[in-house]
Amino acid sequence: MTKTTERVEAQWIGLDWGTTNLRAYLMAGETCLAEARARKGMNTLATRDDFERALFDTVGGWLPQDPQVPVRVIACGMVGARQGWREAPYLRAPTTPIGEPRTVPTSRPGIVVEILPGISQDEPAEVMRGEETQIAGILAAEPDFEGVVCLPGTHTKWVRVAEGGIVGFRTAMTGEIFGLLSERSVLRHSMDEEWDEGIFAAAVAEAAADPAQAPLAFFRIRAQNLLHDTIPGESRARLSGLLIGAELAALGAFRDAAAVRVVGNATLAGHYAKALGALGQGAILHDGAAATRAGLAAAYRALAPGRAT
Amino acid sequence: MTKTTERVEAQWIGLDWGTTNLRAYLMAGETCLAEARARKGMNTLATRDDFERALFDTVGGWLPQDPQVPVRVIACGMVGARQGWREAPYLRAPTTPIGEPRTVPTSRPGIVVEILPGISQDEPAEVMRGEETQIAGILAAEPDFEGVVCLPGTHTKWVRVAEGGIVGFRTAMTGEIFGLLSERSVLRHSMDEEWDEGIFAAAVAEAAADPAQAPLAFFRIRAQNLLHDTIPGESRARLSGLLIGAELAALGAFRDAAAVRVVGNATLAGHYAKALGALGQGAILHDGAAATRAGLAAAYRALAPGRAT
Repeated sequence: MTKTTERVEAQWIGLDWGTTNLRAYLMAGETCLAEARARKGMNTLATRDDFERALFDTVGGWLPQDPQVPVRVIACGMVGARQGWREAPYLRAPTTPIGEPRTVPTSRPGIVVEILPGISQDEPAEVMRGEETQIAGILAAEPDFEGVVCLPGTHTKWVRVAEGGIVGFRTAMTGEIFGLLSERSVLRHSMDEEWDEGIFAAAVAEAAADPAQAPLAFFRIRAQNLLHDTIPGESRARLSGLLIGAELAALGAFRDAAAVRVVGNATLAGHYAKALGALGQGAILHDGAAATRAGLAAAYRALAPGRAT
Repeated sequence: MTKTTERVEAQWIGLDWGTTNLRAYLMAGETCLAEARARKGMNTLATRDDFERALFDTVGGWLPQDPQVPVRVIACGMVGARQGWREAPYLRAPTTPIGEPRTVPTSRPGIVVEILPGISQDEPAEVMRGEETQIAGILAAEPDFEGVVCLPGTHTKWVRVAEGGIVGFRTAMTGEIFGLLSERSVLRHSMDEEWDEGIFAAAVAEAAADPAQAPLAFFRIRAQNLLHDTIPGESRARLSGLLIGAELAALGAFRDAAAVRVVGNATLAGHYAKALGALGQGAILHDGAAATRAGLAAAYRALAPGRAT
């Protein structure tokens, strides 16, 4: 029994708990032993009991039989929002990415969930929850990194990093707007599942060169499709390219770095790298899940266990 | 009986049949005798029978008892789209706003629906269905009008009018994007039912002065609401102002007229007039429904009845 207890004590659980999904990692130090995913994001959960049930439904198989045995659980993301399990107040930028967590007891005496704070910025007003942990992951691997990190997603974050911390950041709702326009607006009638790389790059360049014209460009995708021949993948790639090109134009001051670090899943990060390339800028890709795990591991190392806050 | 028949022959029906709604007007010459509305737009109807049933459900009470008695029915809008009752091919701009209709027979021998064509533009690709009839209505009242007409709605149209016709036009999806962002995006959590005029005008001016920054301004509405005090109506008015300000910036070349004619319902047209005012430009408001009726009446006068096309 002693041996088993030791093995379990050396393990911990990292949670990337967002608006839509819960991603859980069984960790031993820096090593990921197992991974679980569930569509049990903050938006699907109402009460504290819902959060606890979602957690144990997802990671229950990883827990020791004895509920008294402590297992650290460290979480980042919207689970710390006001509508989450427990609000973890924002750190205010400029700041180091990892701050003191708020803790939530569970019905298992050995498990107290540590929820990492998000980061806010006063002027311009901005907030993030989860991306700061990915920044911590990048800094764990490269403590001296200074430059710009782009974290594409529903709400793409652009983060300026220097001196081991987050200096400032901006948010573009590009992912959410693309989803709404391609799935719920009149443009949905012109979308297919294809993707044309050349049209994407041309649309990025067009919108970046004259972003003020973007408001008139969207409906034209539909009109083009009604009046002229369009090729498979044209409408989807053009809509995405226009939105990302306009985003990059707005972020001029955030793109001075030699190469932007782009953190995310391969497809989406690849689109941003391609878009940056269309404007003559380099990009270095990082896997988003790996960055999150590295950031959670940095928090695991940095924070003493067993605090009640 | 003779007298009754004469009264009915002098009447006709105008239809404004859009994507969402069907609006019907019982007309005697230029005079509107009665009006009916139903949520029976193109999007709610699949088959030809659906369209006929929607028509007779809505205007049946206006029809003479004898189904042989002819009553002209003139329609504009999405009813003439490919997914409508019968496709009425576009006129190509530059063009007069009223073109030859396509006709649809009904099960009532006396009723053949005349569907007016929409208007297309090759470069840049644009289409409209319904707004051309409102332009015809404005030209009916002021045949010498030359200038710019703004028709705000789900898809706001900006139309340059000269020499009695439509020279060219542009479309901004501002209304649809506002609806999606305020009702379906993360910004919905920050919306209330209020409206702040001062914040609206300031947001118009801000976006018009620097439209390239618009992509970063949307999420900030949410962050502002989370981090700082916001007043009732701030978020909604700011979102609308940013979108309309960016639209006006994109339309620079379409706003050279001394005063833009704004055609629509009082609330929405009022917002556009206010936005134009914030940029120092005058606006003259026209009631949208009255413009549609006047345009349908112009078609009634201009087109000989009884054609089959």
